[in-house]
This record gives sequence, C-alpha cells and structure tokens, in this order.
Amino acid sequence: MAAPVTPPRGMRDFLPADKARREHALGVIRGVYASHGFDEIETPVMEDSHRLHAGLGGDNEKLAFAVMKRGLTGDDLRTAAEAGDALALADLGLRYDLTVPLARFYATHRAALPPVFRAIQIAPVWRAERPQKGRYRQFVQCDIDIIGEAGPLAELELLNATLAALDALGLGGCAIRLNDRRILAGILASWGVPEELRERALITIDKLDKIGPDGVAAELRDLGVEQADVADEIRQLAAADWHLHDGVVPPPAWLDLDAYADLRALRAALPGAAIEFDPTLVRGMGYYTGTIFEIAHPDFGYSLGGGGRYDGMIGRFLGQEVPACGFSIGFERIVDLLEIADDARPRAVVLVHDADVPPLRLVALKSELVASGTRVRLERRVKNLKALLDRVTADGFDAFATVTAATDGADSLSFRDLA
Amino acid sequence: MAAPVTPPRGMRDFLPADKARREHALGVIRGVYASHGFDEIETPVMEDSHRLHAGLGGDNEKLAFAVMKRGLTGDDLRTAAEAGDALALADLGLRYDLTVPLARFYATHRAALPPVFRAIQIAPVWRAERPQKGRYRQFVQCDIDIIGEAGPLAELELLNATLAALDALGLGGCAIRLNDRRILAGILASWGVPEELRERALITIDKLDKIGPDGVAAELRDLGVEQADVADEIRQLAAADWHLHDGVVPPPAWLDLDAYADLRALRAALPGAAIEFDPTLVRGMGYYTGTIFEIAHPDFGYSLGGGGRYDGMIGRFLGQEVPACGFSIGFERIVDLLEIADDARPRAVVLVHDADVPPLRLVALKSELVASGTRVRLERRVKNLKALLDRVTADGFDAFATVTAATDGADSLSFRDLA
Repeated sequence: MAAPVTPPRGMRDFLPADKARREHALGVIRGVYASHGFDEIETPVMEDSHRLHAGLGGDNEKLAFAVMKRGLTGDDLRTAAEAGDALALADLGLRYDLTVPLARFYATHRAALPPVFRAIQIAPVWRAERPQKGRYRQFVQCDIDIIGEAGPLAELELLNATLAALDALGLGGCAIRLNDRRILAGILASWGVPEELRERALITIDKLDKIGPDGVAAELRDLGVEQADVADEIRQLAAADWHLHDGVVPPPAWLDLDAYADLRALRAALPGAAIEFDPTLVRGMGYYTGTIFEIAHPDFGYSLGGGGRYDGMIGRFLGQEVPACGFSIGFERIVDLLEIADDARPRAVVLVHDADVPPLRLVALKSELVASGTRVRLERRVKNLKALLDRVTADGFDAFATVTAATDGADSLSFRDLA
Repeated sequence: MAAPVTPPRGMRDFLPADKARREHALGVIRGVYASHGFDEIETPVMEDSHRLHAGLGGDNEKLAFAVMKRGLTGDDLRTAAEAGDALALADLGLRYDLTVPLARFYATHRAALPPVFRAIQIAPVWRAERPQKGRYRQFVQCDIDIIGEAGPLAELELLNATLAALDALGLGGCAIRLNDRRILAGILASWGVPEELRERALITIDKLDKIGPDGVAAELRDLGVEQADVADEIRQLAAADWHLHDGVVPPPAWLDLDAYADLRALRAALPGAAIEFDPTLVRGMGYYTGTIFEIAHPDFGYSLGGGGRYDGMIGRFLGQEVPACGFSIGFERIVDLLEIADDARPRAVVLVHDADVPPLRLVALKSELVASGTRVRLERRVKNLKALLDRVTADGFDAFATVTAATDGADSLSFRDLA
C-alpha cells in the first residue's frame, strides 16, 4: 500500500458532481454579467513579482506564492542567503487578487479598449493562508469592474448586475451595505485622528464585528482618540440609517454631505433592493477612495462579496489617473449555498457485455444516441447489476440500455428507466 | 509616461473578443465530451514538488515553474547554497501537464469514482520554455482519459469523442495516425537494439520529421545499430499501410502481430474516419505502453493533439496497476483555426446623455432590455458619434438606442440598427 496521496495543503480537487455545480454557477454569473454589458478578459495566473509587491495588495502581498527564477546558480543562492532575502530568488508570483492584474492589464491594453471598459474576470487566486475551515489556498473570485467612469453610474451598474447575478443563482433578497471613504474620513476628522494615523484607525474600525464598540474605542484610544463617549458614538454610527439627514433632520457634524447625497441617489435608483447605510463599513483594502459596498443574504451570517471605488490605483501602473470601481463575488462562499440543476440533457448508461455484441461495434450505437441529445456512458455489465444501477442512478443517469445483436449488423438498444 | 507594462514573458492576456472565442470553443469541446460520457474534474494548479519530479513528466520536468516555500530563513538559504540545490527551496510547482495531476487525483479519490472513470480536464499548464512564435509559457490543454479499461474500447471511445469534438468545432476531416509501442519494440528488437538503449532509440526515431531517414539512421548507428540499410527500412516503415499483413501478405519479421491486429480492429470500428498506420510514430512521453495516436487536419501541417495508453503510470501513485489511456487536444493550436460564432444574443448600445435623462434613471430601462434577452452596454454620447458607432459595430453590437424622457417618469428607448 502506497502512502496516502493528497492534493497540496489547503487546496482542493473537484470531483465530477462538484465540478459540474461550479461550472454551472459560473456560467450563470458569466451570462448575467455579459447581458449587463460587461466583457470577459483573462490574464496569466502569474505576474511579475515587483508588481505584486508594489504596495497595492495590502496584507495579501505577504500571502503571495513566489515563483523561483529558473537556472539559479550557487552564486545567486549565496547572495540571497547573505542578504537574507528569499524574494530576490523569485521573479514571478501567483496573483492574490484580480484587481492588481486588472490594473496591469488596463495599462497594457488601454488603446484597444473602449473609453469606459466594463471587465469580467472569473478566475482563481492564491493565498498562502493558514488552512482552516472555509479558507482555501486556491479559490475562485468573480469580479466585475468599470474603468473610466467617474460618476455614480458605475456603482449603479455594478450593484444592479451583481444583484441580478445572485438572483439568477437563486440568492434573491440580498441586502447591500453602503458607505463612502469620504464619510469615514469625516468621522475620523471629527475625532481628531491625524492624517498619518487614519489608515490604522480604519483597520481598527474594520474589526467592529469582532471586537465590538468598546474594543474599537479602546484601540482608538491607543491611537490618541481621547473623547470619553467614542464607544457610544460608534454604537450610534452602526445604527445610522437613511434619515440621518434628509433636509429636515439637521446633519451631524461628522457627515460628509456630498458623499451622503451620492449614496442616497444610488439607493433611490435601485428602488426594489434592500440597501442599508452603514458608516462603519470599511472594507479592508487601502486603495479604496470613494463608495464601498458589501453584500449579504439574510439567511447567512457572512458577506457574499463586496467592492468599491479605487480611483487612484490604475494610475500606479499607467502613470495617468483613471477612475475605477469594482465588485467581487466570493464564489467559494456562495457555491455551496446553491441548489442548482446540472446539465439538463437526458443521461443513459449502455451496458457492455462481450456475449451481446463485440465492444468495438458499440461505437456506432453510442454515436447515434449522442446525436439524439443524450449523454451516454458505457458500463461493463457486472454480476451485481443492482449495485451498478444504484451507482449510476446516484450519478444522475435516467435510463439504461442493453444491446441486442442483429445478424445483419444493425444492432439495437432496449431501454429501461432508472429511478 | 510610465515604463511599458506587459504580462510576464511568454504569457498572454486575452482581450474580450479572444476570450469570448476561447470560452465558446472550450464550451463546445466540454459539451461533446460530456455527451460521450466523460465527466469533468479539476485539480489545483500546483502539485507537491516531489510528485512533479518523480520521473513521469519526461523533459517537461525540467521546465516546471517551482514555487518557493513560505517563511524561508537565512539558514534555509545557506543550506541550499552549500548544496547548490535551488529546488530544495521549493515545496510546490505549477503542473506542466494534466496527466501527472490526473494520476495523483485518481490515487486520492479512487473509492469515490466509477470502476471505469472517464475524465475531462480542460485547464492551463505551465512550462518555462524559451518563448518563441506559437509557444507560450501558459497554455490550455483539453484532455480526456479513461482509467480502468484495459481493452481497445477505451481507445475507440477516446478517438470517437475527439473526432466528434473537432467536428463540432468545424474541423471535420481530421486524420489519425496510429501506432503501438509494442510495434516499436518489435522494430528495435529486429535491429538488435539492447533493452537499455531502447528509450534513446525511440527519441531518435521521434525526430524523423526533423532529421529525415538518413539522420535517424546515422544516430541509430551511434547507438550500435550496424545494418547498412536502416535508412531504407525507415523509409519503408514510414510508407507502411494497412495491407502490411492482411492474412494474404506475409507479415514482416519486425511486426508485432497482436498489436497490429488490435490497430486494424480499431480502424474497422471507425469506418468513416481517415486512420493511417504509422509504425514510426513515437509520441515523446516515456510512459506510453501500448497504442499511441496523433491527430492532424489536412489543411494544417502540424499535429492538433495526440495521446496513448499508459498502463503503468497510475500505479506509481496508487501502488496498484490500473490501465489508462488518454487523448489531449492542443487547444492553442486549434483555437486560431476556428471560425466560431460568439454568443448569439442581440447586442444594443444605449447612449447616455445627461441632457436626455439623468444617468441614474437609466438602470430601469437597462434592466428591462436585459430581461428581454439583449446584451446591453451603456455608452456616453460623444461629439463624434460616427466614431463611437463604428467602434461599437466593430465590437459586435447590432443596434443603438437613445433615451427619451417622459414627464411621468416612464422613459422610453428609440432604437436604430447598426449596419
């Protein structure tokens, strides 16, 4: 007996039933996004190492898998050892998200793309996280991004397309939480957080779900926020709604009025959807500059995806500012929630038995059956026919057939339903 | 102006039109293979390094991209430097083919798979080849494999499904070259090539296309093949056909009669297909044990794919012999040959102009149009309308619409065809 053979740590194989579910769900998402005017692109799984480590990936940069240079010499290894710099031995890395590759792609191909470019990317990314339940080292993201549109039409198209995709997957009734980095900046300014500590303060607020208002207030105190009632203020922020300032109610001092008006206009443009205002929503990534959003389903206690506006990022590769906004569905989080039909074609098993018809004569019968629109699997007849039929029924087959030889060579099939 | 920004060397981005062509072609292949009773699976892009370097990948092992261990210390680097062993720093690698991962997958999941398992794998592989025209460092392979079937039914199903897939792609009329490793063994034995030199002799014969019969004969002479007329014999072998031995013509001494009878039976079972016998066909990989095949289209001077029987390989991971046979389509070689239709849904551009209707009111119109089965892209109206319409016509759009505001809020679209 050989030693157990497994895929690499934290990574998964997909057996036929899982693979079919995944491809079906991805096809639904792809189709809805294409209907909404987005165009799918693809980039290589690897990017040049210096691009992955340019400071745009946040904490994910530390989780990147590095790909070694080819033909490394003993000298190369010694130099890296002396410098204590393993990354010097890598020239490529596996992408940890689809946003950095998209920014690189846009910089490469801008001349061939429309002025407002709506991209679909459906592809795996890799992060060397500590494997744990529900976290994988290879997982699929479904991103849509709009590059070149500065107005809220971008946010609106992204939200509308995402809701339509989730709806098509049977996940209707999702709720969207909305915020704007400008509103967060107003809150931090009202607490007197200096510019250079704002990123750290945002990281703290982002932990609200985990450490609660008192935990956040304590950490903010360490950053120099002195007010006694910060925890209460955070509770009030978390309970904020669309009536915070409607022209009648006077606005709180911390509220960025332009940003709030933009968010209200967005909500008004999607009258059927459940859209909440949450001024404590942060969405980790440091590159967001405006609107941020997160989507959840009332039946599940976690976010199904999110995104936001990142107007500064494309410029890092292009050398010229271009507005951009994106939404990412966390595919691994939704695929297990779906009750989806596989390929609807009928499936038939044809039983192969040397005594009936020589196996090589079966191919003509099989081809005819395939041409009629059936998915066909040949199975050798075994003594325990019941076990075989149970197995293929579990695999989704509807019927099985036996072959009758004809002396004139026109063999025929006799079908029986499974079920 | 920033420096030019490109994908990593030897790797490609796919813009929307190319990506759509590729996905469409892959969908056709996937659908045909599923009809023929194959089931798609997926494995991670990485495998444990020692599995990729177990001697099953032939020359491809040297081309594998190695993924560095995380958290390497200065000591690790020094140890590798002293041993001059860069690979000691890698625990993972990117797969260079889909056969090694399939063998690993089968060993991992055998208990959950049917006794005869028909696998589809459609996925990228990576090889650090010297970039050159038509060779890429990331490229897609479309493999089907049958594991657990020792008889020629496996070869027949593979060939039949492959021909059907190419046919569905508009590449009908392909020709298949067939051979068997047992026949090659017979030829080498007739020349007196000792067992330990056979692999090298096969590598030489595999170069027949490049160096010609005289070149092959010269290299064989270096391996100790002394006969004066080897070049002539190779010419005769290359011209062999199905009448080599038909019960009337006596068989040549080198011909393995069992293998030849099996190949003739295969051919007889596919009466509509162009199937040639070529006793000089080798198909590089060392793991083949029986039938080998290669497929070509009369319009193109190169192979579109190939495969063969590799009965010993699964056992390397499983510790137990299991027969296996596979066929791989070189997707990059065929995708550019295809004239394929993209998504057939109508496409309409809706012109956005603040003076007509506020952009945020457009989402309802867009959603209605999408629900009617149209792919919709919003475009901001620009002064040079003709240039815009030319561009979207080139992108495949059929119609454009302008928006008329209604005082009661029921905005409407007026369509015009794009020619």
